[in-house]
Amino acid sequence: MTLPGTAGSSARRNDPAPVIAELKAMLGDRLSTSAAVREQHGRDESYHPVLPPDAVAFAHSTEEVAAIVRVCARYDMPVIPFGTGTSLEGGIAALNGGITIDLSNMNQVLRVGADDLDCTVQAGVTRKQLNEYIRDTGLFFPIDPGADASLGGMVATRASGTNAVRYGTMRDNVLGLKVVLADGRVIHTGGRARKSAAGYDLTRLFVGSEGTLGIVTEVTLRLYGIPEAVSAATCTFPTIKAAVDTVIQTIQCGVPVARIELLDEVQIDAVNRYSRTDYPVAPTLFFEFHGTERGVVEQAEMVEAIAGEQGGSGFGWATRPEDRSRLWQARHDAYYAAIALRPGAKGWPTDVCVPISRLADCIVATKEDIAAAGVLAPLVGHVGDGNFHLVYVLDPENPAELARADALNRRLVERALEMGGTCTGEHGVGYGKMEWLAVEHGEGWNVMADIKRALDPRNIMNPGKIVRT
Amino acid sequence: MTLPGTAGSSARRNDPAPVIAELKAMLGDRLSTSAAVREQHGRDESYHPVLPPDAVAFAHSTEEVAAIVRVCARYDMPVIPFGTGTSLEGGIAALNGGITIDLSNMNQVLRVGADDLDCTVQAGVTRKQLNEYIRDTGLFFPIDPGADASLGGMVATRASGTNAVRYGTMRDNVLGLKVVLADGRVIHTGGRARKSAAGYDLTRLFVGSEGTLGIVTEVTLRLYGIPEAVSAATCTFPTIKAAVDTVIQTIQCGVPVARIELLDEVQIDAVNRYSRTDYPVAPTLFFEFHGTERGVVEQAEMVEAIAGEQGGSGFGWATRPEDRSRLWQARHDAYYAAIALRPGAKGWPTDVCVPISRLADCIVATKEDIAAAGVLAPLVGHVGDGNFHLVYVLDPENPAELARADALNRRLVERALEMGGTCTGEHGVGYGKMEWLAVEHGEGWNVMADIKRALDPRNIMNPGKIVRT
Repeated sequence: MTLPGTAGSSARRNDPAPVIAELKAMLGDRLSTSAAVREQHGRDESYHPVLPPDAVAFAHSTEEVAAIVRVCARYDMPVIPFGTGTSLEGGIAALNGGITIDLSNMNQVLRVGADDLDCTVQAGVTRKQLNEYIRDTGLFFPIDPGADASLGGMVATRASGTNAVRYGTMRDNVLGLKVVLADGRVIHTGGRARKSAAGYDLTRLFVGSEGTLGIVTEVTLRLYGIPEAVSAATCTFPTIKAAVDTVIQTIQCGVPVARIELLDEVQIDAVNRYSRTDYPVAPTLFFEFHGTERGVVEQAEMVEAIAGEQGGSGFGWATRPEDRSRLWQARHDAYYAAIALRPGAKGWPTDVCVPISRLADCIVATKEDIAAAGVLAPLVGHVGDGNFHLVYVLDPENPAELARADALNRRLVERALEMGGTCTGEHGVGYGKMEWLAVEHGEGWNVMADIKRALDPRNIMNPGKIVRT
Repeated sequence: MTLPGTAGSSARRNDPAPVIAELKAMLGDRLSTSAAVREQHGRDESYHPVLPPDAVAFAHSTEEVAAIVRVCARYDMPVIPFGTGTSLEGGIAALNGGITIDLSNMNQVLRVGADDLDCTVQAGVTRKQLNEYIRDTGLFFPIDPGADASLGGMVATRASGTNAVRYGTMRDNVLGLKVVLADGRVIHTGGRARKSAAGYDLTRLFVGSEGTLGIVTEVTLRLYGIPEAVSAATCTFPTIKAAVDTVIQTIQCGVPVARIELLDEVQIDAVNRYSRTDYPVAPTLFFEFHGTERGVVEQAEMVEAIAGEQGGSGFGWATRPEDRSRLWQARHDAYYAAIALRPGAKGWPTDVCVPISRLADCIVATKEDIAAAGVLAPLVGHVGDGNFHLVYVLDPENPAELARADALNRRLVERALEMGGTCTGEHGVGYGKMEWLAVEHGEGWNVMADIKRALDPRNIMNPGKIVRT
């Protein structure tokens, strides 16, 4: 099976030796060409093959990133940014060789503006590190894609996750950026004002651009007050449709749920085995409510009533922080739990997002496809946004299994697009979903390529991802 | 006084006669060259001089807009989109002549997705028209810049207004667009899914681009359920600082106010005269609360307590729809009330937006400047976002008055930028604030120009606005 997106573009373009020599002189030990380091930086969390860069540069500052990019630009050498390597669509793969810039040492929280509910961090700070740092301020950063990803990487992939139904995605929570461009220029975008009508929205252009337009080195983020009250709940449903219809009605009624997550019976079984929980093996919703003491009770009562009408049962509560943490840890481990169902297997995670009115149809039809294909593919979803995931649990060395997963994935994406949805709600494009962008955006995909050419005329910034130039 | 942004670029480039002849053949009566129609389309709501186009084309469809653009492209003729003419920074001025495309006849609501809380409209639909159309669905569209602007125009300027503190701006509420590009290609951006990680965020690139990258002909928007309960309130403060500190604490406490508007004592006096109200002549906050019956009471109690600590008094309530409408009509008429303070005068409205922690400092210092300059300049603000407005009430034929307003405006913008804010929170750039973009964005302004050149290489789309190419 050929790698989607790599056909005709995987040839190395230049001898890396002179670039490596120059960077070695600049960075010393912080430029590594060891096989282990290169492999680690060519591997994401998915089934994609390891495609290591020629060398890995560990940068300490924006100025250093700019200097590295300027050297690479002189040699037409690809530059790939790397945070924690938790991307899922091959975003960090060195399709054409090149230099990976590892930003994990740029892990300083530069400023917390408690009065303005904002902060500025270096790109290598992870979301958990940030929340740990600001714990005593009464604030938190809500975006939670599961993995403890770097905030620069979350910017790059326009990450979202469980809290997005209430707090939005990275699109909504980035106030400004510092970015190194393909020629080594450094720009700032956005600012600290909550809104601005001052020119093109460069911030939103870089959010989700996956390192193809520039390398994000600093991020200014919105923060939120930790809610006065938080409660979580789970509820079991007789059918997947009953669970999804509960979600749809909850959203349509305007209940401001903070999280509303679906796990199908296959995934619940996996979670029980992996996290030693004992949820009934049936479609299940996990909820979280944020607000005042009274507001949280009000929200939960409304949702319990809606769930009850759909046959939901066992509306179980967790108000103690440790119980909530255990519940959400089980949810966050869903991906690892899915893969653990089959020892030695790997996961091909995928996601789509559809208008919420089509969510039940989309999920029911998708589960019928999975059953007919005889593939192991647990389903989880940030269903309040209309976003859900499958993990095809497979042996990536087995072409027949890969082909079956690929066929299922095509049907999944085609159905989502037919329903007015998108080929990825939050995982991003990388090279794994690049071919679908043309289907989804049509001529708009060519406009994306025009923008890529304007900002990166020599195509050195994470080439082979998102657009073809 | 020279027009900022027009120096060196105001020369007409081409003879308009052949373009007009071709468009006349295409559109018949819907291509107008009458002086009255041209003047109407060269005038915005501000003090900017009337700069009429060579002709005005009244388009009926996306295909027609594309056809008009293709003709103009062949002749290198500027193309300027026009909705209701309520822009404030010269955004619709024909600096280089050209053809204005009036979209007001493209006023169909194409689709309402009550189940998905979204809709698709032609660009000429106004916000009031949309809310009237969907009144029976239990939904509403919250973005409210005051003027009954077209939704295409609101996209173009990234409009926001009174509800933005709760519901966000046009940036947050546009799901997708149909856009005619400079070469006549038609693209769609975004989609109906609530989130997507599928490629560059072209939707957000066009939102706020003021017709310089393409002409928006269709808009897909988020809608919201009309809240179960709505209440409004006003409160009077001894000083402007006490009022602003009330705002800051309200936001920092996370009270989800739907509207929180400041009017200074000059503006309140103007409102009383214009709208025959009898508010105490003092700094005043107007609030609106949306939620459940209990939630609204809870919010109002919290705000009343905060206001009380700041010396606020006369916390007056309005729960009946007609009383609320009267209150907000008075607020919306603030601009006209300000101008009416001086018969025959015109308004030079301006706005900035700063981090909320700096809002009190910024407003107090600005009012000191105004007092020292002896200029009539009422102040209003969407203060929950850190955004406020001045209206310099002046005789635009009097160079000394213009110069005084200009000096005040420079100090205002410089202060906002020094405080980490932006030169415009919601009015946009047009040519009136173009020179400030370079100060605010530095090298980023050049990147904006790179994008402009990539999408409009011949610079025909609303030239002379936002960027210089």
